[in-house]
Amino acid sequence: MGKPALNSQVITQIGFVVHDVEGTAAAYAAFFGVPMPEITMSEPEAVAKTEYLNGPTTARAKLAFIDAGSVQIELIEPDQEPSTWREFLDIHGEGVHHIAFAIEGMEAAISTMEGRGMGLLQRGEFPGGRYAYMDALPQLKVLVELLENR
Amino acid sequence: MGKPALNSQVITQIGFVVHDVEGTAAAYAAFFGVPMPEITMSEPEAVAKTEYLNGPTTARAKLAFIDAGSVQIELIEPDQEPSTWREFLDIHGEGVHHIAFAIEGMEAAISTMEGRGMGLLQRGEFPGGRYAYMDALPQLKVLVELLENR
Repeated sequence: MGKPALNSQVITQIGFVVHDVEGTAAAYAAFFGVPMPEITMSEPEAVAKTEYLNGPTTARAKLAFIDAGSVQIELIEPDQEPSTWREFLDIHGEGVHHIAFAIEGMEAAISTMEGRGMGLLQRGEFPGGRYAYMDALPQLKVLVELLENR
Repeated sequence: MGKPALNSQVITQIGFVVHDVEGTAAAYAAFFGVPMPEITMSEPEAVAKTEYLNGPTTARAKLAFIDAGSVQIELIEPDQEPSTWREFLDIHGEGVHHIAFAIEGMEAAISTMEGRGMGLLQRGEFPGGRYAYMDALPQLKVLVELLENR
């Protein structure tokens, strides 16, 4: 029994890629009996500083968040620019894209996961924090998102 | 804002279909830094009384469970007999198959979901309870498992 890869083992979010964030958000709101969530847009390149496969990308996505107990559902409708969201949607179709963990120490966490064969796919920033998607698909059968609040 | 479909809105489990439950369970155990979970077998037909698409099936699966905060990860390696596990794996490949809710009142829950266009795919029993997989793929982009403990 070795050391955990991350300093959190609590799944905080399940992220889906979808073709129509409004439609899927409405379906979740109806399913849970909650109000329709706000649809937002991920930050533009100047703020998000998104990097996909080690290069900058202008990719953005429409987002919706719905709480389900201690886990948040994130719905992501990507634009056509290169991103893990777009690639996953094109290859796998709609469905679960990632599970997220709220970690501390982004660079160390990325480095540890890379050392375990789970490479960095995409990273970026948002108001209040930053994220990184790690390719755990071969091992864990889903991508892992590292979330760090400032 | 209408009535919720279920009497629980708390996701208790994320279920994956996989080709090799031992390998994926070992990867999760290493990722979380926890002991290798026990690999079990779903109950035989006589106990499970599994029904898939309204007919009995002898399908079984190898199972592993790993806790991740308040959410449990279920890994499912189905056999070749007809089941939602096998069908999902053949069509979509490895990945997230369902999210589960611990509900009370199985028949009413199934009926409510059917009334909302999310049909019953598979149901069965296990020691201590019963389950039903509902086809919420068109609406929620994932299957929904109803779990009821006796």
